[in-house]
Amino acid sequence: MSSEHNQFEEGTRQRLLEAAGEVFAEHGFRAATIREICGRAEVNIAAVNYYFRDKEGLYEEVLQYAHRRALETYPAEPPGGEDVSHEERLRVFIRSFLDRILGPGRPAWHGKLMAREIVEPTAALDALVEQSIRPLQTVLLGIIRGLVGPGVSEWMLRLCSISVVGQCMHWCLARPVLRRLHPQLEYSTKDIEMVAEHVTQFSLAALHNLPREEQRSCTA
Amino acid sequence: MSSEHNQFEEGTRQRLLEAAGEVFAEHGFRAATIREICGRAEVNIAAVNYYFRDKEGLYEEVLQYAHRRALETYPAEPPGGEDVSHEERLRVFIRSFLDRILGPGRPAWHGKLMAREIVEPTAALDALVEQSIRPLQTVLLGIIRGLVGPGVSEWMLRLCSISVVGQCMHWCLARPVLRRLHPQLEYSTKDIEMVAEHVTQFSLAALHNLPREEQRSCTA
Repeated sequence: MSSEHNQFEEGTRQRLLEAAGEVFAEHGFRAATIREICGRAEVNIAAVNYYFRDKEGLYEEVLQYAHRRALETYPAEPPGGEDVSHEERLRVFIRSFLDRILGPGRPAWHGKLMAREIVEPTAALDALVEQSIRPLQTVLLGIIRGLVGPGVSEWMLRLCSISVVGQCMHWCLARPVLRRLHPQLEYSTKDIEMVAEHVTQFSLAALHNLPREEQRSCTA
Repeated sequence: MSSEHNQFEEGTRQRLLEAAGEVFAEHGFRAATIREICGRAEVNIAAVNYYFRDKEGLYEEVLQYAHRRALETYPAEPPGGEDVSHEERLRVFIRSFLDRILGPGRPAWHGKLMAREIVEPTAALDALVEQSIRPLQTVLLGIIRGLVGPGVSEWMLRLCSISVVGQCMHWCLARPVLRRLHPQLEYSTKDIEMVAEHVTQFSLAALHNLPREEQRSCTA
């Protein structure tokens, strides 16, 4: 196959992913149709079969693709790695997280698609969690471990990571409610910056001052 | 109309609300059909028209009904009102919030219905926000104002209220992800108790230690 042909193939595949992202975000996995996706991508219906096997395969690829693209645009870790303070690493993690779900440098359908999949999961959620969400969780757990120091249980670290992520995700998942409760919110770049700074300060104040005797465990 | 007849009417209306809650939670507002709701409630299709005008009217009533029932079972404020400390009021607010969205004493469809409406809103969200969500927000803002004391901007109080609510809502909205990331979670009553205690401690540590010079404002 010539490289020109490869480029053509890559273009078709890419157009399918973009169109599918839009259509899945709009209608949800079940109601979305291959016909509409191929129409929007201007490709033959057989292309889905060729590149992605079926609708399930296409959907799974779209989720991973959206996540990968967002991470490329907004990396979760600052350059410099180990030389950066835990506080700064938390700040970058939170800011990049909010940028990935709310920021302008991502496809407009990304946040909605993810919100749908998280709240009403399909069979694709397992792969999304293992390949995209769990690696990020590992990064965040490392940052929190560095911030709170030794003597804090693994389960406590997990609860704290959920508190940090929950504060961020709420701005995406509950956006329709937040815009009604706080009409001054525009979700502009300046607003995202301000929210990131607040979530960072709130979380640092909590993590630096948690009662140390707390060693709670969950049911299991 | 005899009181017996009134009771009969109340029973029909109630059965419709319960059946509609289940069906709307399962299929979403758009895909749910009046036929299925009436079939499950074992009432004539004309009853929807009689009691709720149309599908929109029924849906709006179901949202308010679910919220009202949850608040009756799990009130947001402790008895005793002003005599209770701000810390204890925050603890009760968080515990009752988690119980309303996750606890056993609510219809199983309640959390899912609310999650759907929050993430993919319909025309009913305006009324839900004004009649159900905003009054709770006012309570929470009062508690936070009491905790942080004077000299903190109204906007800062709002950001803190979003941090508290976001931590709670995440346990409901991201449940499918959290169960995969933390398989030991059972969402049992003991787990909910443990989560409530964590969110309370995390939020109190943050609210008591926020940097005071922070007077951030939003875009508007």
